[in-house]
Amino acid sequence: MVESLVMAQRTAFSELERAAVYRAIAERRDVRRGFVDCPLPEDLLQRLLAAAHSAPSVGLMQPSRFIVIRNIETRTAVHKIFQEANSVAAATYDGARSEQYAALKLEGILEAPQNICIVCNTQSERGHQLGRHTMPETAAYSTVCAIQNLWLAARAEGVGVGWVSILDPIRLRTILKIPDHILPVAYLCIGYVDQFASEPELERAGWEKRVPLESAICYDVYSENPKS
Amino acid sequence: MVESLVMAQRTAFSELERAAVYRAIAERRDVRRGFVDCPLPEDLLQRLLAAAHSAPSVGLMQPSRFIVIRNIETRTAVHKIFQEANSVAAATYDGARSEQYAALKLEGILEAPQNICIVCNTQSERGHQLGRHTMPETAAYSTVCAIQNLWLAARAEGVGVGWVSILDPIRLRTILKIPDHILPVAYLCIGYVDQFASEPELERAGWEKRVPLESAICYDVYSENPKS
Repeated sequence: MVESLVMAQRTAFSELERAAVYRAIAERRDVRRGFVDCPLPEDLLQRLLAAAHSAPSVGLMQPSRFIVIRNIETRTAVHKIFQEANSVAAATYDGARSEQYAALKLEGILEAPQNICIVCNTQSERGHQLGRHTMPETAAYSTVCAIQNLWLAARAEGVGVGWVSILDPIRLRTILKIPDHILPVAYLCIGYVDQFASEPELERAGWEKRVPLESAICYDVYSENPKS
Repeated sequence: MVESLVMAQRTAFSELERAAVYRAIAERRDVRRGFVDCPLPEDLLQRLLAAAHSAPSVGLMQPSRFIVIRNIETRTAVHKIFQEANSVAAATYDGARSEQYAALKLEGILEAPQNICIVCNTQSERGHQLGRHTMPETAAYSTVCAIQNLWLAARAEGVGVGWVSILDPIRLRTILKIPDHILPVAYLCIGYVDQFASEPELERAGWEKRVPLESAICYDVYSENPKS
């Protein structure tokens, strides 16, 4: 057992490499401001998409498709549906919370020179249904794994990514000509940024605080942690 | 613009660090075999859970909870429901595909000394519904981002992770005492492994082939790529 453990530990990355992976995880931010008005070079964009594309997928289904949006008319149309959805959302808050919401910057659709809509073909026959009989939602989850790969690779490249979910998916489908059998999973604003904040913007703005790790862990069976 | 681009590029990681992040993304595998019979040290497990916990979440909701399962009775019960779900799934295939399915190794529930069930409190008031008015599914997606963080950190540590979705979620809830308002998102087998394969196991076994990146990308509007 000791011998096989020693062998197993040889598969670990070097200390420097491990630190780099943890750094990307720790310093990744949901970026909505500070985008630089300069498009990403094509080779960099392709590296990020390749990172997304090599994510795990249920049954090796690879259901994710990436719509790269650069043209300003399309981004303007998406920005308009953001504004409408955001007005509806804003109206649900009262008092101080309402003022706080109004002051938040929640997207960078027009400032980021490119946006990416990531969609999922949940109906694809690829993978031959393996792993999807009992939990079909794993098709969409595979696409989310791709998004997180892209997000971390982007951080390493000094590229900011912001996920905008304040959009009516039906109207988004119309703008991007997404057919009914394809599920829009995420709409991302992406580009070079002037800086990465040291903490999440919603924490800095006083909207919500992070929960301590220990309150998110339980053992052997589910239990509510009083701190969570 | 050139000046702000130069400033922006200063936020990028060093070449070595970038390579480490891409290496984790490229060499991560869905691992179902070769687990070493030696539990993960507690500090390593905590680093992996911390990586998961620092994932992005809609509205800073942090809805993910991690059930670490070590005890063999619980893993045996989960393995039993895997076997039942797997028999049902196996019966849906015919001919050569059926033989191929039967030969696949699809989980390491008993071999991996620990399993982790990752669940999502989709009903949590944390985050005050920010970002969830139009796309409430982003709560569960936040949990998937946490899973992918853990998966990549694990690869860097030389730790294998396998996602098992061939489980009836209702029976999984019973075994792990997961209440109705909490959504089971993923069941992971995790532990040291003797090696990481150079390609996905399902590809090696001839179950499915990877699609080329270019067939997964389109521009400005959705389009079906003939290669996809």
